[in-house]
Amino acid sequence: MIIESRSHQELIDITDLINEEIRKSGVSEGLINIFIPHATAALIINENDDPNVCVDFLKKVDDLIPLHDNYLHDRVDNNAAAHIKASFFRPEFTLQIRNGTLLLGTWQQLMLAEFDGPKTRRIEIMIRK
Amino acid sequence: MIIESRSHQELIDITDLINEEIRKSGVSEGLINIFIPHATAALIINENDDPNVCVDFLKKVDDLIPLHDNYLHDRVDNNAAAHIKASFFRPEFTLQIRNGTLLLGTWQQLMLAEFDGPKTRRIEIMIRK
Amino acid sequence: MIIESRSHQELIDITDLINEEIRKSGVSEGLINIFIPHATAALIINENDDPNVCVDFLKKVDDLIPLHDNYLHDRVDNNAAAHIKASFFRPEFTLQIRNGTLLLGTWQQLMLAEFDGPKTRRIEIMIRK
Repeated sequence: MIIESRSHQELIDITDLINEEIRKSGVSEGLINIFIPHATAALIINENDDPNVCVDFLKKVDDLIPLHDNYLHDRVDNNAAAHIKASFFRPEFTLQIRNGTLLLGTWQQLMLAEFDGPKTRRIEIMIRK
Repeated sequence: MIIESRSHQELIDITDLINEEIRKSGVSEGLINIFIPHATAALIINENDDPNVCVDFLKKVDDLIPLHDNYLHDRVDNNAAAHIKASFFRPEFTLQIRNGTLLLGTWQQLMLAEFDGPKTRRIEIMIRK
Repeated sequence: MIIESRSHQELIDITDLINEEIRKSGVSEGLINIFIPHATAALIINENDDPNVCVDFLKKVDDLIPLHDNYLHDRVDNNAAAHIKASFFRPEFTLQIRNGTLLLGTWQQLMLAEFDGPKTRRIEIMIRK
């Protein structure tokens, strides 16, 4: 699965895309492992109903891990902050499938966290009954 | 499984509850996926033998992500900090079952991290051999 | 699997060791759960090609969670910061096996994050087709 991010930093709701993959698999109950093979992006789960939750999240992450802060890796690639954020927020979730859909709470969506966009990002899934 | 939190912020040891669910399943070796369907709580693993580990953890989390800090979502729901914390600490673990019990180290317990209590919280599990 | 850390804090690339375990299992496609049964270490995924990514990461983690900061647990065991870091970075990953090897991106390696070394650390894995 391919996601094109459009901003330098953003959260992209991928819940519907994952549910479409589950539907295509025909599995109604099981586990799905979702993985992004990138070291400057991550997966998070949170509310996307009030989009300000995402704004607040990204602002706080930037407060704690500023884009530039004398990072050594910036001399090579200028994206050290994105690497650090990717380690904080991780590239993997294993989630439950119930009734052919992702088990999430009312206020939870699955989002790709882009920390070094815009970029073309892949998502790799594996489903097991 | 239902957990009633009693404080605004607290860590609740759910290791025994999960082990009881494993026992009821009859599975002696496999994987258990543990998920909380909430966007203002999370799951963490740490020591609960010295309860001050939990006190230190919650204090540090509040230092880094203060309860109020001009978050935009606070205008709607006044719990933006809890949402941010939930994204840092995540709602999911997939753990190993060995000899009919959760594989954990001597100093590890599984805890529900309540960031916006008191609230009624659900925990959803799926076990696979 | 046993890992001996040599420094107080360091990232140890365990990608090759995990791939060797996968090879021995004979499983070519499935899931592997990787768990460290310790409350003062964690698992992270990031780039290890430019080792400064690891240097930047550990420095930032120390900036946010200093080694000493009036933690209550330090009166008992003097490693409160390591416990807090272990909760931020978690002891578990569930990853995909494809073609008999760990599915990782070009710039991703799996690393044990030692926060209270030097110590002897165990890694427990479970593989499912």
